[in-house]
Amino acid sequence: MYQIDLNCDLGESFGTYVKGNDAEMLDYVSSANIACGFHAGDPLIMKETVKMAAAKGVAIGAHPSTPDLVGFGRRTMDISPEEAYTAIIYQVGALQGFTQAVGVPLHHVKPHGALYNMAAKNKALAEAIALAIQHINPELILYGLAGSELIAAGKKAGIPTASEVFADRTYQSDGSLTSRRQKNALLTDANEAAGQVVRMIKENKVTTVQGDTITIQADTVCIHGDGAHAMAFAKCICHRLHMENIRIGS
Amino acid sequence: MYQIDLNCDLGESFGTYVKGNDAEMLDYVSSANIACGFHAGDPLIMKETVKMAAAKGVAIGAHPSTPDLVGFGRRTMDISPEEAYTAIIYQVGALQGFTQAVGVPLHHVKPHGALYNMAAKNKALAEAIALAIQHINPELILYGLAGSELIAAGKKAGIPTASEVFADRTYQSDGSLTSRRQKNALLTDANEAAGQVVRMIKENKVTTVQGDTITIQADTVCIHGDGAHAMAFAKCICHRLHMENIRIGS
Amino acid sequence: MYQIDLNCDLGESFGTYVKGNDAEMLDYVSSANIACGFHAGDPLIMKETVKMAAAKGVAIGAHPSTPDLVGFGRRTMDISPEEAYTAIIYQVGALQGFTQAVGVPLHHVKPHGALYNMAAKNKALAEAIALAIQHINPELILYGLAGSELIAAGKKAGIPTASEVFADRTYQSDGSLTSRRQKNALLTDANEAAGQVVRMIKENKVTTVQGDTITIQADTVCIHGDGAHAMAFAKCICHRLHMENIRIGS
Amino acid sequence: MYQIDLNCDLGESFGTYVKGNDAEMLDYVSSANIACGFHAGDPLIMKETVKMAAAKGVAIGAHPSTPDLVGFGRRTMDISPEEAYTAIIYQVGALQGFTQAVGVPLHHVKPHGALYNMAAKNKALAEAIALAIQHINPELILYGLAGSELIAAGKKAGIPTASEVFADRTYQSDGSLTSRRQKNALLTDANEAAGQVVRMIKENKVTTVQGDTITIQADTVCIHGDGAHAMAFAKCICHRLHMENIRIGS
Repeated sequence: MYQIDLNCDLGESFGTYVKGNDAEMLDYVSSANIACGFHAGDPLIMKETVKMAAAKGVAIGAHPSTPDLVGFGRRTMDISPEEAYTAIIYQVGALQGFTQAVGVPLHHVKPHGALYNMAAKNKALAEAIALAIQHINPELILYGLAGSELIAAGKKAGIPTASEVFADRTYQSDGSLTSRRQKNALLTDANEAAGQVVRMIKENKVTTVQGDTITIQADTVCIHGDGAHAMAFAKCICHRLHMENIRIGS
Repeated sequence: MYQIDLNCDLGESFGTYVKGNDAEMLDYVSSANIACGFHAGDPLIMKETVKMAAAKGVAIGAHPSTPDLVGFGRRTMDISPEEAYTAIIYQVGALQGFTQAVGVPLHHVKPHGALYNMAAKNKALAEAIALAIQHINPELILYGLAGSELIAAGKKAGIPTASEVFADRTYQSDGSLTSRRQKNALLTDANEAAGQVVRMIKENKVTTVQGDTITIQADTVCIHGDGAHAMAFAKCICHRLHMENIRIGS
Repeated sequence: MYQIDLNCDLGESFGTYVKGNDAEMLDYVSSANIACGFHAGDPLIMKETVKMAAAKGVAIGAHPSTPDLVGFGRRTMDISPEEAYTAIIYQVGALQGFTQAVGVPLHHVKPHGALYNMAAKNKALAEAIALAIQHINPELILYGLAGSELIAAGKKAGIPTASEVFADRTYQSDGSLTSRRQKNALLTDANEAAGQVVRMIKENKVTTVQGDTITIQADTVCIHGDGAHAMAFAKCICHRLHMENIRIGS
Repeated sequence: MYQIDLNCDLGESFGTYVKGNDAEMLDYVSSANIACGFHAGDPLIMKETVKMAAAKGVAIGAHPSTPDLVGFGRRTMDISPEEAYTAIIYQVGALQGFTQAVGVPLHHVKPHGALYNMAAKNKALAEAIALAIQHINPELILYGLAGSELIAAGKKAGIPTASEVFADRTYQSDGSLTSRRQKNALLTDANEAAGQVVRMIKENKVTTVQGDTITIQADTVCIHGDGAHAMAFAKCICHRLHMENIRIGS
């Protein structure tokens, strides 16, 4: 029988601004990537999100970013490996403060947005991030794009890694995600997304926008928690995994 | 023989801005309160400061603040106990990330500026801060103004406390510090400051600006690391403590 | 025939976070108070909001705040008159940049949240704000709480003022608004709110939560643009003003 | 007789952090580029700097940046032309608020750091910046790297431009500045820098690090106001210009 981790970015509200359906989404996923204040989230929201995830038995991860609140951490920024290393320590430490306070373990780290994408291709940045995690706690699992420099850096640093695939994003033949600036970046049909997920889990294959079939390692699947159809999407994918006898668990 | 902890606020640079003589000051103090990014400090500076303090065997504490970078955390701000609780967890967690990475223990927590002063008088705020520390790690020592609500809250929460006195600040007869807006807030003569310190340690007494003598508990003495005469001040006080057979240690 | 200005706080989105129904609300109001980045808003949103308001012929005002994004500018903060003066110049100047770029005049300035409330009672702060407006452009209209120190400061500085009343807030017998921390701070019934507005315009009277009837000057009425029932509220009040032969205009 | 504008980046302090020797430097330059809060500066400092520059008859310009306080605006960041357009309007507007309040004209706009460098090569970004200035006030002079896309964009937008050269930076054969990450990015000898300046003014020539001699238009010369030797550098260059009969004026 197959098993897969289903993860979602959560805690992305800020101050009086609300984003996502966190409480509902926690009923579907096995691990939560919680924003740490650099692209979204604030101390109050981090506390609430950690408490909710803990109450529902969802594994808790840090979701650190470049410092870019107004850009939601999506803008590529030329930070040095040293800046990445310290940004990771700071944000993972901050979130760990809340897991300690609530009395649950911190489970993983998944860089957000531009930091995630830069670390997929930039070896020095990837190694700085992996080293930061290794230094703060070598048992934390590094979530990174399947086949990326970030996964390679995690293995090199001797920390556990989880190769991540995306339910609703399309792939390029080099294994990278299609940029959000492209029109075909997103799968908008939930059944199609569910089909892509099942195939990645069972066959380790995905068809790219160029029409090629490439091999892909799927340890964890990212689903999105905001947007109009997020909940319908989540339900459809969970239902399909259930039908296919794939167990969801971190 | 007497012993006293000598503490100093450090790591208060930010980005390309430099403040204080951290490297030098670490030769004189037994504990360092390191800024956590809300009033000063950034991840790079936090890492460097933790490393320097660790290398010199100085006990490391978090120095959390209200979110007020441009005001250096000195402006009173009407934050709720819940906001204070989460701000403490966030910042103490972030600094603890760096102590974990460097492999040294986190030793204490001392709120900064306006947060320190508000917590000295506001019981609900003081208890929220003490609870945050108790939740993240009940062995951390809470540094607070001698005789304040913050020290009372720490005792109530069952965490260790250190009653703090100031070398270069003057006192009001109610035990509070003279506001920095008053002209007589600061002792500018190093010998006078050293004398005040010795008397507080040996006799638990201080003379207030009103001319009264009040009782004061002195577990730790704050000296300042920035300003034109900071180093001369530090040297003078250390020399006097030595002359008086008072050992410096955290 | 009566005439009244109907104003609304707009442009309070931030980055990817959306707040309010700005496009719709602009169909009902005669003046818009646009956030300037300190409590909400960012340059992109300011531009869009100014363009929308200009296209609908709504008078444009700046809505400056204390620097408190995470607290949405609602937390009382001990800023000096000098800090208030410069914060007003900065934010009014920034918004004026967008009105110049779009080619429409800047019409008024209404301080936001905690700054508005502090300036209602603190004379030094109120005078610093009025002076800032007088220095940047003495034709800008200062919107302030009816009967407040802010209105008095505007008159003293020789700039035009508009005494503001609130449709959905309740009043204390000293003329101040009931704090949002009180349960009875808000009128939740649209008809009751409309009735309060009409009476304030026609009779210059309002009944306080203590049961007194006080005199109140109503040059402009604030309605709120966010919240579940904002649009229904706006429609109800506009309809009632129409029924009562009160013209809406800035 | 030759004439040249000598400009300097000023107002780069922030909160309690001091940078540069602004008061002294204003005795040497003919135009000041004043930070607008995104990479440095805050409202209080902007006001003080505008007042000082006005008192000394120095022409005042805005020095807008990407939003990157901790990185001092030096980190390349993938902002869109629309984001650049609105960031310019916001910051130029904010500074113009202070020039209005003081009663002096705003004279020019010079993008800072990474924004300056990106706009030198990225045509879409350069045109967005030029358009923003044209929209806010088409009489403002755009300062940009000599020979850059930014100068071309200014000419295309029909606004006045000033081609900028640097006293203490070295040049590549394509006319770009040597990156600060290179060891030979800076001229540390004041006489050498002065010589480079004089030759750029009188002959429109500069020798690159590759050893080539290239043609360069010099309307304004940037000298730096911070760093240990800033004042000695400024004095040396001014003295040399005087000796060479080159008048300093904006």
